Amino acid sequence: MNWWLDACKTPSAEARLQATERQLQLTKPTGSLSELENVAIQLASLQNNPRPNIDHPWISIFAGDHGVMEENISAYPQAVTRQMLQNFTGGGACISVIAKEYNAKLQVIDCGSVGDAYEYAGVERHCIIPGTANFAKQPAMTEAQCAEAMLLGAKSVEQAVAHGASIYVAGEMGIGNTCSASAVACFLLNEPAEQLTGVGTGIRAEQLNHKKNVINQALALHQQYVGQDAFKALCAVGGLEVAAMVGAYIRCAQLGLAMVVDGFISTASALVAVRLNSAVREWMLFGHQSAEYGHQRLLQELKASPLLKLNLRLGEGSGAGAALGIIKLACSLHNNMATFAEAAVIGDKV
Amino acid sequence: MNWWLDACKTPSAEARLQATERQLQLTKPTGSLSELENVAIQLASLQNNPRPNIDHPWISIFAGDHGVMEENISAYPQAVTRQMLQNFTGGGACISVIAKEYNAKLQVIDCGSVGDAYEYAGVERHCIIPGTANFAKQPAMTEAQCAEAMLLGAKSVEQAVAHGASIYVAGEMGIGNTCSASAVACFLLNEPAEQLTGVGTGIRAEQLNHKKNVINQALALHQQYVGQDAFKALCAVGGLEVAAMVGAYIRCAQLGLAMVVDGFISTASALVAVRLNSAVREWMLFGHQSAEYGHQRLLQELKASPLLKLNLRLGEGSGAGAALGIIKLACSLHNNMATFAEAAVIGDKV
Repeated sequence: MNWWLDACKTPSAEARLQATERQLQLTKPTGSLSELENVAIQLASLQNNPRPNIDHPWISIFAGDHGVMEENISAYPQAVTRQMLQNFTGGGACISVIAKEYNAKLQVIDCGSVGDAYEYAGVERHCIIPGTANFAKQPAMTEAQCAEAMLLGAKSVEQAVAHGASIYVAGEMGIGNTCSASAVACFLLNEPAEQLTGVGTGIRAEQLNHKKNVINQALALHQQYVGQDAFKALCAVGGLEVAAMVGAYIRCAQLGLAMVVDGFISTASALVAVRLNSAVREWMLFGHQSAEYGHQRLLQELKASPLLKLNLRLGEGSGAGAALGIIKLACSLHNNMATFAEAAVIGDKV
Repeated sequence: MNWWLDACKTPSAEARLQATERQLQLTKPTGSLSELENVAIQLASLQNNPRPNIDHPWISIFAGDHGVMEENISAYPQAVTRQMLQNFTGGGACISVIAKEYNAKLQVIDCGSVGDAYEYAGVERHCIIPGTANFAKQPAMTEAQCAEAMLLGAKSVEQAVAHGASIYVAGEMGIGNTCSASAVACFLLNEPAEQLTGVGTGIRAEQLNHKKNVINQALALHQQYVGQDAFKALCAVGGLEVAAMVGAYIRCAQLGLAMVVDGFISTASALVAVRLNSAVREWMLFGHQSAEYGHQRLLQELKASPLLKLNLRLGEGSGAGAALGIIKLACSLHNNMATFAEAAVIGDKV
């Protein structure tokens, strides 16, 4: 049996109850902190701690290149994938600034980018394949390659747990990967490209139509092989970094580490993870609703209510990273507000 | 001429331009940080600084009691107003925790609560009147009392500016004050209570109907005196803390201090301020869209797009305070992300 089918941990009902009872005692109208209360209570349950915290966030960025770039489906050239890897570790990328802001460990893992071997300070290079195959013509990955990428994600979570991480964020970098994520989502939802394809980093209208055509043709090409199988969909049209995130999400749930899901690509990965192992869903918080067309549909499928709606569409874990600030505040309020008894405030309604 | 009609400062077009140009150079797809970019650019303009920051936030909480509490329109007893004043300075209230989280100065000003004279550590007591009159039967405040409350708000902003504040948040505390804010909003928008009245801290359905009736009757009672005059509406059905926030908002714009507007009561005050002096609007950021019915209508009237939508309905500046985290992150990203040139990343689309 594949490791990703192994059982997930069960969140603590006891810690959830204790956190819920505490919220009712804090000096505010009942329920008035709404989603901030819900986050604190969910996190209490996931951390098995009625006083949850995110003092040690862990962010892993998975990178990979995409053979489907041959089809001219992205606004930026493929070389940007590797350039951004150096920017992540150099401190200049959005997620680098966010990691510093929230005192998070930032791990950068190249699952397979196009080009020769290299050594970039701080980048963990694992060249499973130097970019996936062009899924417009053949499967993006073999099943072995896909499983290897999933394992990279799982190993990253094991490191995070060993490091004492209190919450896990996966992000991605890979020019062309909204195209791959859209195709994966189409298979999972059994919907055509029109429902789930957006402009990514910013292609023009005619290029968007072309991107949809490429995806629809790929769906037809791989339909017989994929059927209803989420893993096969991932192999056929996914990406190395998408597979790594799927593995990471499943491993978080198996090891009992709360995670924050990011935007479109991340949520497509989250949906694959939940389809492979449904109990993974309980361990997910959702950072934001992005501007990418189709993200809302994926969130709906996962019955997810994201914390932020700032129209971000940057990727690299930025929306989930930004949500760390809200989650941190939710924990501070939960832990540090006075109870009615402590503050001698009347808590009963008239 | 009343001071609140004096001219506001003009935000810097030059700093806005410089900040906009910088955003275009940062290592991300153009526009991909969306609202986080907009916040940084607006703040650059308001702070006349292409590299804005909110290192020194200032939060003032204005409290007041409401004569209309005689009409049984709130879920909590009036004594809670004063109890919460002590909780603010004691560190146990939501806004106290938020102030600590974001390194903000927290000022607590009692504009007029019901009861005898007192001394609470850290609370600035200014008893203009010990609670407004019951606006169901007579004007809530005389014009002199209302102007005095507005001046309290203005003085608070002058202190904030002298203290070197980088951004200003006004919050409120006053059991019954959603009723007052709804009535003010009804006058300003010329709409009946049904459009602008919600459950506040949590009244039941039948009590909500009663609250609407009380407001509609008050609108009829004061219509002839108020007419289209925002100041007279404030006197007739407003509150001391509402008037103080109006004064604070106007003074922020006159002295050139960026402000973050909070929820329903705060936004009603913001609308009064803008009606009195339209240039005040430019100096406003909007922290959140609250769960209170009618808030969305007020935001729409102000053409405001709030940063957070977390269904908060607590008041005391909590939503604007929570938004400080997002504004702080927006500044960090703006100031600390690398440019394409610095990071040697290709910034041009294919």
